[in-house]
Amino acid sequence: MNMNDIIVKKRDGGKLSEAEIKWFVSGYAAGEIPDYQASALLMAIYFQKMDKAETFMLTDAMRYSGDTVDLSGIEGIKVDKHSTGGVGDKTTLVCAPLAAACGVPIAKMSGRGLGFTGGTVDKLESIPGFRTTLEPAAFLQQVNEAGIAVIGQTAHITPADKKIYALRDVTGTVENLSLIASSIMSKKLAAGSDAIVLDVKCGSGAFMEQQKEAEELAARMCEIGQAAGKKTVAVVTDMSQPLGCAVGNSLEVKEAIETLKGCGPSDITTLSLKLAGLMIYLGGKAKSAAEGEQMAEQALYNGAALEKLRTLIARQGGDPAVTEDTALLPQAAFSQEITALETGFVTAIDARTIGLASQHTGAGRASKEDEVDLSAGIVLQRKVGDKVEKGDVLMRIYANDQTKLSAASREAEAAFVIGTQKPQQNVLMKEILGL
Amino acid sequence: MNMNDIIVKKRDGGKLSEAEIKWFVSGYAAGEIPDYQASALLMAIYFQKMDKAETFMLTDAMRYSGDTVDLSGIEGIKVDKHSTGGVGDKTTLVCAPLAAACGVPIAKMSGRGLGFTGGTVDKLESIPGFRTTLEPAAFLQQVNEAGIAVIGQTAHITPADKKIYALRDVTGTVENLSLIASSIMSKKLAAGSDAIVLDVKCGSGAFMEQQKEAEELAARMCEIGQAAGKKTVAVVTDMSQPLGCAVGNSLEVKEAIETLKGCGPSDITTLSLKLAGLMIYLGGKAKSAAEGEQMAEQALYNGAALEKLRTLIARQGGDPAVTEDTALLPQAAFSQEITALETGFVTAIDARTIGLASQHTGAGRASKEDEVDLSAGIVLQRKVGDKVEKGDVLMRIYANDQTKLSAASREAEAAFVIGTQKPQQNVLMKEILGL
Repeated sequence: MNMNDIIVKKRDGGKLSEAEIKWFVSGYAAGEIPDYQASALLMAIYFQKMDKAETFMLTDAMRYSGDTVDLSGIEGIKVDKHSTGGVGDKTTLVCAPLAAACGVPIAKMSGRGLGFTGGTVDKLESIPGFRTTLEPAAFLQQVNEAGIAVIGQTAHITPADKKIYALRDVTGTVENLSLIASSIMSKKLAAGSDAIVLDVKCGSGAFMEQQKEAEELAARMCEIGQAAGKKTVAVVTDMSQPLGCAVGNSLEVKEAIETLKGCGPSDITTLSLKLAGLMIYLGGKAKSAAEGEQMAEQALYNGAALEKLRTLIARQGGDPAVTEDTALLPQAAFSQEITALETGFVTAIDARTIGLASQHTGAGRASKEDEVDLSAGIVLQRKVGDKVEKGDVLMRIYANDQTKLSAASREAEAAFVIGTQKPQQNVLMKEILGL
Repeated sequence: MNMNDIIVKKRDGGKLSEAEIKWFVSGYAAGEIPDYQASALLMAIYFQKMDKAETFMLTDAMRYSGDTVDLSGIEGIKVDKHSTGGVGDKTTLVCAPLAAACGVPIAKMSGRGLGFTGGTVDKLESIPGFRTTLEPAAFLQQVNEAGIAVIGQTAHITPADKKIYALRDVTGTVENLSLIASSIMSKKLAAGSDAIVLDVKCGSGAFMEQQKEAEELAARMCEIGQAAGKKTVAVVTDMSQPLGCAVGNSLEVKEAIETLKGCGPSDITTLSLKLAGLMIYLGGKAKSAAEGEQMAEQALYNGAALEKLRTLIARQGGDPAVTEDTALLPQAAFSQEITALETGFVTAIDARTIGLASQHTGAGRASKEDEVDLSAGIVLQRKVGDKVEKGDVLMRIYANDQTKLSAASREAEAAFVIGTQKPQQNVLMKEILGL
């Protein structure tokens, strides 16, 4: 096979065959196909797109490009959950314990990632002592014994996807549905679960700003998962304003604990229950998503889910006392309040602006090498639709560096829009696909 | 500036600024921008195209990426001539002496190139003793004294174009009008002439198969030349069958000599007179292209042009006796005749098939490292429209290797189509632009 011919075929609108896609993925991962041909093909794919069959074959080739996780040693139906990422999205910290408390084995591998805050793994590491690496055998054993384990992704999962993603990131070829869907799903499929719940965000703080695009991505990912023989369900949810109030690593752990105590913000509570309900249903522990959601609600209010989080923390070396006293989590040295300059209603809190301000407090990485500041971030005191009086505190910014604090504060301030009319609320749950 | 931003801008249909184009070209030539970003940009350009202004700026940036030739030491208006390449295209060997004989100083730098035969420089090197390298001072001196010099391109002309072309060649990004036009014109403009005559071929043996595409390319190149302040004229000419009868290096030199003696094939004679007429007109030696063509015709029939070729050969170390006795040119060891299997009219001689067969005799390079066999090639005995009897010789194949000879013969045979009806002739000169 000849890479130039494959590029020209796709450039001219042709469909790549399974053999061509496999040859490209394995050749590129092995360093036999140079970056410059791979990037030209990716740009041709950007313009000419891939159909369902090509997208599945690309996913499949990347899925098997490295190690795959064998979860067969765990009893029960293993359900994974993935979010496409947003601002303040700590749902994994809430719905994983919820689903585990209802009997769904949670064997979760999470990322760190670039962005507005760290990933789930960074957030968990803000709990003193928490270890996010476990040997495979210990990982399986913990899930069998405790019902839940959350660790970082191993280095050898989907190396082809890692290499292709890194190339897309610097060649203007990120924004293509098939490439996005196959990148996410190759990792999910390699991670070995039996079923997958996807949370596809849309709005200014999400990768997909438009609902239509988010729905297309959700549909594409469901197709891939189902074609791979896994039950796959996707929800499309709002990310026009941050989810919950806390944006940051330890700040989000604190909010997750509060949510599991039944006193979290309503949006994060609602969404976590919905996602947990789907996980419980796909995990075969409920007859419907609605029943799953009811079970999750029970586990929330009877404390079983919080207890599951305590178990998770204790099993992985962390101090479970943080669930009683969140002051044990790392605290930022400095903070600043942002107050309302006028009276009215909060009509918008731009998620992206808050996300970038959070990154600039130190809570998120701009590049892989950056260290995450676990205690920095932002806590909103008001959300969209709330009434505010001039002088009310809108949010608090946390940082360990005065310069970062004032820069992030100025930046975050611009996110709030205050108007005279109470705004219509954005619907949090926009759609469910794949049920 | 950031290369990813530039890629995304073009990908999304934006116009690149002069600063962005210059930054890309100089950064890529300097090795500061990696191949994988350059190829992604080129593929984005393939899909989104470049407008006139962008194409000119790209040309200009490549033109000045290396050395430029200073022909100011030569008196008179220097006119360059360029063909986009075809099969049997030896017009330079004919029209350069024609124009020089009419007083137009010819300071020509020609290429070797890949393809069906060698380039003009290879063809000239089939003349025993002919040297195609001259020091700059000697080059200028020869033009001033003898009116004509033809040498190989120097290595330091438009290095950015060389690097970009090599990348396009392996990343499916050759076929874009702006990229083709800027590549050709950057070299022509760097070569320092005052005016340019372009011969854009169309048909199966040419880069542009469709007349419409060839016309667009011609128009784009004229715009670039004119925007650079050079008189630029383009003719669009037929390349559906080979030009003339000879395809090969020494074989084409022989045919050029015959043409300058007034007994060449009519198509090569007509086209060479037309191109020379345009060169004479742009060179200020005639009041119109028609007058220039009349002058060229005189120089052909009074022997002045052949004498100019003798001078050129002698000045550059070659044996001018070849013009009297073409048997002094290298001769192939083996030859084979292809005869007609039926009686009728030649309705087509596929130029591309003949060209590839010529390459496979050894006359052309498939890759830069290949050596050209100067005496190999093909000579047609019949052209489109000719009547043939079964058993008539259609062409002779020449090679220095029996295996190559039989393979090329089989291949060439397929080029001839013989039908019962005399075909309509393709118009040789399809259009003139820029006059």
